[in-house]
Order: sequence, then structure tokens, then C-alpha cells
Amino acid sequence: MPILPEPVQNLINAFERLPGVGPKSASRLTFFLLRAPEDASKNLADALNALQSSIAFCERCFNITMAGNQFCEICSSEERDESQVCVVEEPLDVLALERTGGFNGHYHVLHGALSPIEGIGPDDLKIKPLVERVRGGAIKELIVATNPSMEGDATALYIKQQLKPFSVRLTRLARGLPVGGDLEYADQNTLLRALAGRQELD
Amino acid sequence: MPILPEPVQNLINAFERLPGVGPKSASRLTFFLLRAPEDASKNLADALNALQSSIAFCERCFNITMAGNQFCEICSSEERDESQVCVVEEPLDVLALERTGGFNGHYHVLHGALSPIEGIGPDDLKIKPLVERVRGGAIKELIVATNPSMEGDATALYIKQQLKPFSVRLTRLARGLPVGGDLEYADQNTLLRALAGRQELD
Repeated sequence: MPILPEPVQNLINAFERLPGVGPKSASRLTFFLLRAPEDASKNLADALNALQSSIAFCERCFNITMAGNQFCEICSSEERDESQVCVVEEPLDVLALERTGGFNGHYHVLHGALSPIEGIGPDDLKIKPLVERVRGGAIKELIVATNPSMEGDATALYIKQQLKPFSVRLTRLARGLPVGGDLEYADQNTLLRALAGRQELD
Repeated sequence: MPILPEPVQNLINAFERLPGVGPKSASRLTFFLLRAPEDASKNLADALNALQSSIAFCERCFNITMAGNQFCEICSSEERDESQVCVVEEPLDVLALERTGGFNGHYHVLHGALSPIEGIGPDDLKIKPLVERVRGGAIKELIVATNPSMEGDATALYIKQQLKPFSVRLTRLARGLPVGGDLEYADQNTLLRALAGRQELD
């Protein structure tokens, strides 16, 4: 005998497929929505339906944008510096960098990182369009902000090789201790990087 | 300038309204769905839409059931013991008890617990229908399985007072150390309860 009515079990299953949502959280979310005002689940359903139909990718930087727009808001803006481009793995990374307020250039979203184990090669990423953008000549500095992981480092290295023919400055985000972090909890690699990248006290 | 297209921000906002989902998880879920196959968000949206329209509450025990059914599957089952009724706060508690496989009676879902602070009184809970069920005479034991919290205890006490006129056995779930737990991490109240409720070693 199934304990739960089918629609309830279906919603629990759908929630469980999301990353970071286990069976217990999935039931808790479902039973919350059962007791919440009806528009709580309707709002979520509408937002989900609107997502895929109204979203497209910018033709220049491959960040997300409204369907129908050729370029994203950052690429369309006249206030941003076209000569600096920050290369990131995911649209979520653009969001993180924008929140800092410390970057006023353009972006290039690769949509992943090289990963032989997962079968992700250069052609699965937006690397060729990046090379074309650099070939255009307007870019002076490329900040390769792929993740500080094996895959992110491999991707940065591959991009460096592809861009050898061009006179563009290539930089990578600094590695070191996270601000507010505790030295004793830092892992060995982070500490080594923090030592190697030490700066003058001024 | 808004950083995110409106539909993306809407979905992040809708996720953030769920319990236990913060701003970071909400963006992670949204960007996961952006990259996931289209049917992932469609499945979730459909399950959400089906939830409210196809769910009703059992007229006897107030557990959830399919719309159109008068009674839930447990109340309709002929294999379950009608003389034992377990009183719980939420439908989710029924699920937890059913998963143990250790209870073969019926349930009564109160839909909350008494809480003067939140303004929840006896009339906001399904206590009157419970008294009516007991008055019916078929129930021999009532296991009051409200949460082991201030509110759950107050609710249990209130139910006890309401059922004084009836000769029904009232029990409460045992308090003590959780199985697999560590004695040194148990809080003072739990330890006191575990001491008071100690049992013969056999």
C-alpha cells in the first residue's frame, strides 16, 4: 500500500532530483507547500514554466539574457569597459563577480570546464568564440576566472595555449587564504599558494 | 541595472520563500534548472500544479488523501487496528511513523500544536473531531505522539483533560536517548528523562 497520495509523492520525487535536496528536505518542502496558501506553489510553478521559454544566451558572451535579445545587459551597456574580459565557467559566476562591484569589464561564459573524466572537451565549451573575440582586437586583458580546481586550471591552461598567437594580457584570480578564514583550517594547497603569493605589508 | 533577467530572478525569489532555502541555494537551484533538460523544470511545475488540486484531507483522521476520496488509505484499510489511534501534529509525522513499520493502528492528524505565542488555540486544531471519535467508543488506546516540545506537551495535556469523561487508555511516546546517539552529547532534559524512564536490563 502506498503511504502517500500519488501527487504528493510526485512532487517529493521532483524536488529530490534537485541538487542538494535529499529525501527528508523534499518531503519537508512538499508538506510546507501543502499547508501554504495556494499561490505559493502556483508562483513557483509559473516561475518554472517561464524560465525555459523566456531565457536565451547572449550571442557574444553566452551569459543568460531575455529571449529575443541578441546581447545581454552587460554586453549592451555603454558604461562597461570592453577591453577587459573576465572568463568564467557558469552564469552563476557572473552573478558572484557582479555582486562584488569590483569589475567593470565584460564577461565570457564558457558553460563548463574541461574534464576528460566527464567527457567534456574544448568543443563542448565556448572556447572557439572566445578566440574569435580576442582575434577581433578590442580585448586587452583576459582575466581567466575559472574555478581554482583541477578542471578550472586545465581550462585556463588550454585557453592560454589557444591565445598564444595574440598579444593579449592573460591573468588569473589570486589564490590564498579566504577573507575571514582561519589559518589553521586552511588546506595545505591553499597555504602553499598563500605563501607563494605573499605580498609586501604596506 | 538589474544583473539577472526577470524570469530568473522570479524563480530565485520563489525558491527563497521555501523553508530552509537561502539566497545562495535558491540561485544554485535556478541555475541548475537553466542547464538541466527542459523536462526537469516542467516536471516540477506540473507536480506543483497537481498538488493543491488533487489533494484533500481524510474526513475521519485529517491525513492527506486524493481529492474525491472521503477517507484516506489507512482509514479505508481493513487490515488496520481501529482500536489504536496515534495522534500526531502533521501529515509528515504519519509518514515517519509508517516508515518504521511498527504501528498498525489508525491516526489522527491535529494539523498543529497549541501555541499561545503564535495564537494557535484548541479551535485551530482538529481536537473536537478527536473527542467525537473517542465518544464513538471504538478506540481503546490513544497514543499521543505530538512532538516532545513545549507545544507538543501542552497539546497532549489539553487532550488528556478533554478526554477525562471517557475510559480510553492514553499513552505518550517514550523519551530518552536517541538510538545511535552519544550520551555525552545528550542535553540535560533528555538525560533526566532517560534516567526517569530507565528499564530493566533483560
